[in-house]
Amino acid sequence: MHEHQCTPGKSLRLDSTSTKAKAFRDDRESTEREFEKLRAELIELQRKLYAEGKHKLLVVLQAMDAGGKDGTIRTVLRGVNPQGVHVESFKKPTEEELAHDYLWRIHRSVPRAGMIGVFNRSHYEDVLIVRVEKLVSKSVWKSRFDQINEFEHMLSETGTKLLKFYLHISKQEQAERFQSRLDDPRKNWKFSTEDLQKRKKWDDYMEAYEDAINLCTTEWAPWHVIPSDQKWYRNFAICRIIVEALGELDPQFPTATIDRSQVQID
Amino acid sequence: MHEHQCTPGKSLRLDSTSTKAKAFRDDRESTEREFEKLRAELIELQRKLYAEGKHKLLVVLQAMDAGGKDGTIRTVLRGVNPQGVHVESFKKPTEEELAHDYLWRIHRSVPRAGMIGVFNRSHYEDVLIVRVEKLVSKSVWKSRFDQINEFEHMLSETGTKLLKFYLHISKQEQAERFQSRLDDPRKNWKFSTEDLQKRKKWDDYMEAYEDAINLCTTEWAPWHVIPSDQKWYRNFAICRIIVEALGELDPQFPTATIDRSQVQID
Repeated sequence: MHEHQCTPGKSLRLDSTSTKAKAFRDDRESTEREFEKLRAELIELQRKLYAEGKHKLLVVLQAMDAGGKDGTIRTVLRGVNPQGVHVESFKKPTEEELAHDYLWRIHRSVPRAGMIGVFNRSHYEDVLIVRVEKLVSKSVWKSRFDQINEFEHMLSETGTKLLKFYLHISKQEQAERFQSRLDDPRKNWKFSTEDLQKRKKWDDYMEAYEDAINLCTTEWAPWHVIPSDQKWYRNFAICRIIVEALGELDPQFPTATIDRSQVQID
Repeated sequence: MHEHQCTPGKSLRLDSTSTKAKAFRDDRESTEREFEKLRAELIELQRKLYAEGKHKLLVVLQAMDAGGKDGTIRTVLRGVNPQGVHVESFKKPTEEELAHDYLWRIHRSVPRAGMIGVFNRSHYEDVLIVRVEKLVSKSVWKSRFDQINEFEHMLSETGTKLLKFYLHISKQEQAERFQSRLDDPRKNWKFSTEDLQKRKKWDDYMEAYEDAINLCTTEWAPWHVIPSDQKWYRNFAICRIIVEALGELDPQFPTATIDRSQVQID
C-alpha cells in the first residue's frame, strides 16, 4: 500500500495534505532516473496485458484546471503502444448524454480486456462541478457517492482494476500555470476565462473533492492523492502506482496451444 | 507525390511491385536516423493538430497476416500523445455489426476533429477476406468499390485527410514471420492456424488486394503500397508520408482570443 493511497473510513483533509514533492523526495535527478526505469517497465507490462487480453485497467485522472491531467497522460504513457491504450476525455455532456443517467457515457467507455483505459475527467465531475455549480439538487448529488461505489464495485468484481488519482496542486501553483498559459503562445489555447470563474470557488471545489475522495475511497477502488506541484514527482508517483498495480495483475504472454511439430508452413 | 503513392486510373500489379527496401534505400542506418527525425516531427505536428482541433487524420492499415500492422502502430506512433490518437482494430464483426451495413461500424469510428485515427484493418476487409472466403455474392462485393469511394469522398470533403497503406510483404517473408511467431514465446499468441488457411489462398488475396488498390485509388484517397519486408524501411516510409500530410495541413496552435492585460489571476 502506497503513501499516497487513501484508506477507507479514514478521513483526509486536502488543506493538510502536501502538494509538494519535497515532502516525499528531495532528489529530483534520481527520481527522474527512477521514472525512466518505471516507464520502461510500464511499456513491457502493457505489451503482456494486451497479449494476454484478460485484465482491464482503468486509470481515472481528476484535478483542478491546470492540475496536470494532460501532461500526466502525455508523459507517463509516452512510448506505450497506442493500440493498447484508449484515452477518453469527458467534456460537458452532450444533449444525448444528458438524456441518460450520468453513468451511461462512463460505462460505454470502460476498457475492454487487455486494454488500459484512461479517463481524463470522469463520473466524478458529477459530484464536483455539478455540485459546486448547483447543476442538480443536493439530494441528487448526495445519492451519487453510493451509486458510484456500487458501479465501481461491479467493475472491480468483473475484472477491471481501478486506479483513481487526484492531482493535488496548490492555489498558488495554479496561478503560476494560468500565467504561463497566458504568456506562452503554445499554451494559449488551454486558457479559458471560465477557468478563472472556477478558481474563485477554489474552497468549494476543495470541499467537493474531499467528499468525493473520502466517500468514494473503497477497498476495491481507493483514491490516490498525488502531490502535483512538481511535475517530475507527479509523473514518478503515478507511474510507480500503475506499474505496481500491473505487476500485481502479473500479465503473461499466452503460451502456445498448438503443437509446433504439427505445423507446416508451405 | 510519393514514390509509393498509387495513381488513379493507373493499374498496379502487386507481383511486379517490390516488397524490398533495397529498391529504394540501401543505407539502413541513415534511414533509421531519418526516421527518428521524422518521429520527432510527427510528435510536434500532432500536438498542434490536437490543439487546433480542426483537421482529422485517418490512417488505414491493411496487410496480409504478419504484414506488420501492429508493429507499424507501435513503432511509428511511439511517443505520440495517446490522448490525440485513437486506434481501432476491426475484428470479425459482431452480431450487431452484421445486422447493419458494413460501413456502419467504420463510420462510428472515424476520428473527431484534432485527432489521429488509426484503423488496424478496415472496411477494406469487406472486399478482401469477405470476397476470398465467399462470405457474400460477387455482385455484392463488386458494388462495394464505388460505395467505398463515395464514403471516402464524403469524409474527405468534410475535413478528414485519409492515408491508406498496404504493407506489401512477400510470401517468403510471411513464412519467416510465421516461423518466428512459432519459435518466440513472446509471439506465440499472435499465431493462429487460421492464418495458414489464408496463406494457402495467397494468390486469391493478392488479386483481391490489387482490385481494392486499383479500384479505390482516388484523387481524394489514394492507396500507398509500402515495401514492407524490411521493417526499418516500412516505418520510415509510412512515417514520412504521415509527416508530409500533416505538414500540408499545417496545423497551428490557436492564437489567444483574450486580451491578456484584462486578465487578473487572483
